[in-house]
Amino acid sequence: MPEFAQPQFPRPLQAPDASCGHAVRFSEPLALDSGHTLDGFTIAYQTYGALNRARSNAVLVCHALSGDQFAAGVHPVTGRVGWWPLVVGSGRPIDTGKYFVICTNVIGGCMGSTGPADINPATGRPFALDFPVVTIRDMVRAQGRLLDVLKIERLLCVTGGSMGGMQALQWLASYPERVRSAMPLATSARHTAQNIALHEVGRQAIMADPDWRGGRYQEQGVSPKRGLAIARMMGHISYLSETALAQKFGRALQEREAVSYGFGPDFQVESYLHHQGSSFVERFDPNSYLYITRAMDYFDLAAEYGGDLRVPFDKTRARLLCVSFTSDWLFPTSENRVIAEAAAAAGCPVEFREIESKRGHDAFLLEEPELFAAVSRFLDSVAAE
Amino acid sequence: MPEFAQPQFPRPLQAPDASCGHAVRFSEPLALDSGHTLDGFTIAYQTYGALNRARSNAVLVCHALSGDQFAAGVHPVTGRVGWWPLVVGSGRPIDTGKYFVICTNVIGGCMGSTGPADINPATGRPFALDFPVVTIRDMVRAQGRLLDVLKIERLLCVTGGSMGGMQALQWLASYPERVRSAMPLATSARHTAQNIALHEVGRQAIMADPDWRGGRYQEQGVSPKRGLAIARMMGHISYLSETALAQKFGRALQEREAVSYGFGPDFQVESYLHHQGSSFVERFDPNSYLYITRAMDYFDLAAEYGGDLRVPFDKTRARLLCVSFTSDWLFPTSENRVIAEAAAAAGCPVEFREIESKRGHDAFLLEEPELFAAVSRFLDSVAAE
Repeated sequence: MPEFAQPQFPRPLQAPDASCGHAVRFSEPLALDSGHTLDGFTIAYQTYGALNRARSNAVLVCHALSGDQFAAGVHPVTGRVGWWPLVVGSGRPIDTGKYFVICTNVIGGCMGSTGPADINPATGRPFALDFPVVTIRDMVRAQGRLLDVLKIERLLCVTGGSMGGMQALQWLASYPERVRSAMPLATSARHTAQNIALHEVGRQAIMADPDWRGGRYQEQGVSPKRGLAIARMMGHISYLSETALAQKFGRALQEREAVSYGFGPDFQVESYLHHQGSSFVERFDPNSYLYITRAMDYFDLAAEYGGDLRVPFDKTRARLLCVSFTSDWLFPTSENRVIAEAAAAAGCPVEFREIESKRGHDAFLLEEPELFAAVSRFLDSVAAE
Repeated sequence: MPEFAQPQFPRPLQAPDASCGHAVRFSEPLALDSGHTLDGFTIAYQTYGALNRARSNAVLVCHALSGDQFAAGVHPVTGRVGWWPLVVGSGRPIDTGKYFVICTNVIGGCMGSTGPADINPATGRPFALDFPVVTIRDMVRAQGRLLDVLKIERLLCVTGGSMGGMQALQWLASYPERVRSAMPLATSARHTAQNIALHEVGRQAIMADPDWRGGRYQEQGVSPKRGLAIARMMGHISYLSETALAQKFGRALQEREAVSYGFGPDFQVESYLHHQGSSFVERFDPNSYLYITRAMDYFDLAAEYGGDLRVPFDKTRARLLCVSFTSDWLFPTSENRVIAEAAAAAGCPVEFREIESKRGHDAFLLEEPELFAAVSRFLDSVAAE
């Protein structure tokens, strides 16, 4: 029987207040796409707002690569605000005054859900690379089990950006009758060659760090922080557009009048990346970074349907709001349009919006009034049906 | 007095045939933009074709970040073809039947010109990070000294793509009367924030490699090959367009029927990057990679003229052919157009061409008939004047 529990927060970090957040421990096994099985697993999750009597106002919010279950409010580990406070909250586009928001840490993650930093019951040691590679569908399968426990039969909506959008799409294919609507944002039905390439360089940086120790750094009291920071720096370049970087930093120097003729961070953009890298390693497990990037690389929604992207939408009648941003070069409009067209061809009512923004991929996380209005209107309209 | 010499080929590599190529050793110092001075220096160079009696048919070809003086023919160290065989050669757009092509290894480089792997005469040890940071202008200054020795007063043309284009632009500003024409290709008058960011991540990968040893790897018999390979992998992503990666690799798997559910190179694009990384480290010095990327980051042609890009073109009457490629996101059309407009505003006759190509930044190195025709026509027209 699944048991409610306190989430165990990530190694090396601990939550200052162990009472925050929820977790469910499942003793029944979870079969994975790889053919492996997790004998038991934990899903850590957070909820916002209240479930109504009809249990019909639940919105599942799915996080991206570096996110976790703390979409809103103060993050108990970092002490900073969650990752989607502009969208999830009271009076926000996903209004917690109306909707019951659930956000889970994905399996493979490092914020309380089962991942490579957990103890492998078969050995008594951390899994490290003995953890099975998981897929987006595995993540969704685990979320489905959580919704069973929470007695939510049908979601009003499932949404997320980037990898969160992949999960939203997978929900439509895996559980077509459990979803009334979906909002996949700034995402793709399959990771492109460029996406895979960027991830592979990040993984190589982690695995090249001598403190990675073949993945067994935890037991040896070290951590491949420099490698993970490099991966994160590279990620950040891809999350911003060239225009955003030019407007935000240009060639401005960091606290100096002239270049140093050296290899320190002369330019503001260098300092920014260093900061992004060094703050990330304080909250994220390097092996989780390997596993989650791999899950994204493997994502190809149409692959098991002979490459026909209409088929995974065949069994659902969910409404979709698909959103892309003009300057997002990681998950460009073309990739999002493909989703909208396939779902429409399969008979789903689809609204597709390309939003003019200079902010690149990160736009889905930022102040984008057109996104907010579209999300709010869409949800209200689905709820009113 | 400058002396002609044999170039010393890079550590750890040696040319199989030490008689190939040329070098000039300068005993007179070279003053650098940093305020430092090189007490003496060597320029390794290659020539193709013959100088005419009037000494008026010389074309200086400038290499990009990872290039060297071997633009055409067989590279004596790698045994492979040079970097621009489609453009430089007999009957090629820069026709060595008509023109005398000179290509120098930049200072800071590692193919025989003075760089961080050379012995510092002050210490008897390799310079490593004691080598002064050099700029694009320093590179051009050293080239100017070589042309003095070769008794070439005036170039028919100076050209190059990427960093080679930066050198071509710098020639117009540094030696306005020594240049009859210039072809800056797929380049920029200043490195953008995104360009700097990409370089910084590459440098961090090199410096994070434990075999970097604070830059003193040579003396310790090691080399930060993994770090340099990661930097190179990242570079290659930026040299190709998303479309080129999709067309070349897509999600095709590498010698397997299905994904491995592991962290090896499942996808062809991963294998490609691994190959690019591992072959590069056999021919390139990691510290040179730091120095040359830094020179590019520092490049900002207008900076010393109060930000007015017309001024550096004020003293030259050179004709320009500026070329960009539609899918080049590293040095996009917008950056190249700025150059063309500024030069035109300063009174230079300018031809600007944006060439439709799906190949990204690398297009300037590849089979691009429109480029070839434009280069050929431009050079012939300048020569006929």
